[in-house]
Amino acid sequence: MDYYSSHISRLIEEFCALPGIGTKSAQRLAFHVLNMPKEQVKSLTDAITSAKENVRYCESCFTLTDAPQCPICADPKRNHKQIMVVENPRDLAAYEKTGKYEGVYHVLHGAISPMLGIGPSDIKLKELMVRLKEDVDEVIIATNSSLEGETTAMYISKLIKPVGIKVTRIASGVPVGGDLEYIDEVTLLRAYEGRTEL
Amino acid sequence: MDYYSSHISRLIEEFCALPGIGTKSAQRLAFHVLNMPKEQVKSLTDAITSAKENVRYCESCFTLTDAPQCPICADPKRNHKQIMVVENPRDLAAYEKTGKYEGVYHVLHGAISPMLGIGPSDIKLKELMVRLKEDVDEVIIATNSSLEGETTAMYISKLIKPVGIKVTRIASGVPVGGDLEYIDEVTLLRAYEGRTEL
Repeated sequence: MDYYSSHISRLIEEFCALPGIGTKSAQRLAFHVLNMPKEQVKSLTDAITSAKENVRYCESCFTLTDAPQCPICADPKRNHKQIMVVENPRDLAAYEKTGKYEGVYHVLHGAISPMLGIGPSDIKLKELMVRLKEDVDEVIIATNSSLEGETTAMYISKLIKPVGIKVTRIASGVPVGGDLEYIDEVTLLRAYEGRTEL
Repeated sequence: MDYYSSHISRLIEEFCALPGIGTKSAQRLAFHVLNMPKEQVKSLTDAITSAKENVRYCESCFTLTDAPQCPICADPKRNHKQIMVVENPRDLAAYEKTGKYEGVYHVLHGAISPMLGIGPSDIKLKELMVRLKEDVDEVIIATNSSLEGETTAMYISKLIKPVGIKVTRIASGVPVGGDLEYIDEVTLLRAYEGRTEL
């Protein structure tokens, strides 16, 4: 791409490396950024830098947050005896959008995938087991209904059952193979209400 | 979006403000950035900042570049007597990809649009007229074949004809209403070869 200057080429390459951004989109983004007022560009880079610097895992549920505990774990009105296990923070956000779930979460940051070489020790499972030593009534497994999500759900239920805590799985109202974050709120609620004991 | 921390929300909003990025894509980008190694994040923000700081208009053709003159204008092998007028640097890049055009360019940075209140003085037209005082054989108008592009082409041809310089328009092999940057190289070449005098 030598018809662009090196700075522009580099910027296009950086945008291209982001997920879901092709060459055309990257070009559009690059020229958009170059045409933005200086303060807006600074605001964008500051947002990236400060998010990267300040965001860490919640010490309870391991979602991404900028305080030691996330707003959900720090909320005494939430039911801390009900833990919903999700694969990533976007799935947590998807369930929060329903506005009806009152328990707390546990974010695994992934799912067990023998194909990709991701084992139980590569996700936040040990940390979930530690939480179960406290007073917990129910663990709701809300991993995706993909092969990896189902595998993870089975694995977790086998792990928790001996502890004597109720383990449920969200109903398969969620379309098989679908990604939790793209599903509408009503379907997500149906899946929550129709959860069955494993 | 209070289920995300303020830093994440702000980052999502910043991404959302970019063209062609919706809420879902912005969330994906934000979490992707948070999961990127620190050096990669720095590389991204540096690319944005340094592009913004170093990129300026070429003093001849007004494309975006990081030297006083762009590589095309600085190239003595190009035919400086043939000037192709385009709306923006992406259109210039689209023609450069054909690899056959040997003249130079003039980037207008827009098109005349009475609807949007963009007049002849809002684009780099005066700068084009200054260039025509030097030894120029032909001005090829390669604005988009949209209403604004056609209006601009007509306006420029009326402006240049009294000067006595040949003015041509790329052939309408370009589909009407189409955006130049998305058209394949062969069609762009046909349009160049079939240009007609205005």
